[in-house]
Amino acid sequence: MSQDKPVSVSHPTIRRLPAYLNILRKAQDENKTHISSTFIADKLGYEPIQVRKDLAGLGITGQAGVGFDAAELIDAILGFLGWDNATDAYLIGAGNLGSALAGYKGFKDYNLNILACFDSDLRKVGTEIHGKKVFGMERLAELIERTGVNIAILTLPDKAAQEITDKIVEAGIRAIWNFTTVKLDVPDGVIVERVDLAASLALLSRRTAEAMKNDK
Amino acid sequence: MSQDKPVSVSHPTIRRLPAYLNILRKAQDENKTHISSTFIADKLGYEPIQVRKDLAGLGITGQAGVGFDAAELIDAILGFLGWDNATDAYLIGAGNLGSALAGYKGFKDYNLNILACFDSDLRKVGTEIHGKKVFGMERLAELIERTGVNIAILTLPDKAAQEITDKIVEAGIRAIWNFTTVKLDVPDGVIVERVDLAASLALLSRRTAEAMKNDK
Repeated sequence: MSQDKPVSVSHPTIRRLPAYLNILRKAQDENKTHISSTFIADKLGYEPIQVRKDLAGLGITGQAGVGFDAAELIDAILGFLGWDNATDAYLIGAGNLGSALAGYKGFKDYNLNILACFDSDLRKVGTEIHGKKVFGMERLAELIERTGVNIAILTLPDKAAQEITDKIVEAGIRAIWNFTTVKLDVPDGVIVERVDLAASLALLSRRTAEAMKNDK
Repeated sequence: MSQDKPVSVSHPTIRRLPAYLNILRKAQDENKTHISSTFIADKLGYEPIQVRKDLAGLGITGQAGVGFDAAELIDAILGFLGWDNATDAYLIGAGNLGSALAGYKGFKDYNLNILACFDSDLRKVGTEIHGKKVFGMERLAELIERTGVNIAILTLPDKAAQEITDKIVEAGIRAIWNFTTVKLDVPDGVIVERVDLAASLALLSRRTAEAMKNDK
């Protein structure tokens, strides 16, 4: 296995890395030390060439007949994604979805640590949600500046999304995981990734209705 | 406002409809009866022409100087997406993410009703999660056939995803909202929409690391 400096890696490749990570970790749990691109591809329904290309993009090539060293590959993926160290994040908006995410234990697989929650509802302020303290929105800027937290998970109502974004970016937030339906306006250098559950459900619903109409 | 038979509507347009729906419902709550494409566009950070094109695709055009009739537009979007009637779904895999989604009240905005949960963990079977009963996996096929539920929300571990998919599709499931990282193999006519939280977080993490490196 050789590992050179990674060049530019495509977004689709980056999106597939967590799936590879899951397979590799499971293989390790089963005491496998080496794993082939065919094995990974089979588990995920990809073509083996896809897996090899993706990992080559990270500067990693397997050994013929032996495959990839699982431990090395896990380290390489974690390092590439910056998941080798715990990353603190603030969760903003402790409503239904926010509370669900605050309690989602799967984030620990990716070393994402929700440090605290923020909400404008005074009945929630001072309480804890899944062990995370809830602060009022007026503490946001101060706590971002003081703790140096870079990542915000935005689970607040759409109407407040842009205003709060402006405030947290000014305070030093560099990355926003946006669960609202708003297309946020941010300065260059601030990263936004949106997860739009409603959009996904809309597509599922409409495509299903069309497919079922075709049955008749 | 005229409303003709919708022709083919693009996936990006369908994905934007829930955001329009949110804006329209909020406007109604504030006793606005009419709403302009510029207003909708402003709230979402889109161009007004985009909003007009999207809605024209559904066969809806606003009235010059007056805008869209909010109530009619809401009905048209709900009808188009099949969200005008409650849709029952089964949630399969009552782990962390599954439990969070079972308790997510936001789905009621889209008339999605999680009827029950299924899990292979015998300690969970027979209990309730957020008021939804948990059944054992051996009841899946029977209950899908008996109730005629079409939609499954898949929140189980990757390794079980394809096997359970084969089973539920055979029993009659027509649409799968896939929260696993597995690319599922399904027969023609069965719809799969995947929400890959880990993929989104991977992209956020890597892009942020790159942006912060550029600062130095």
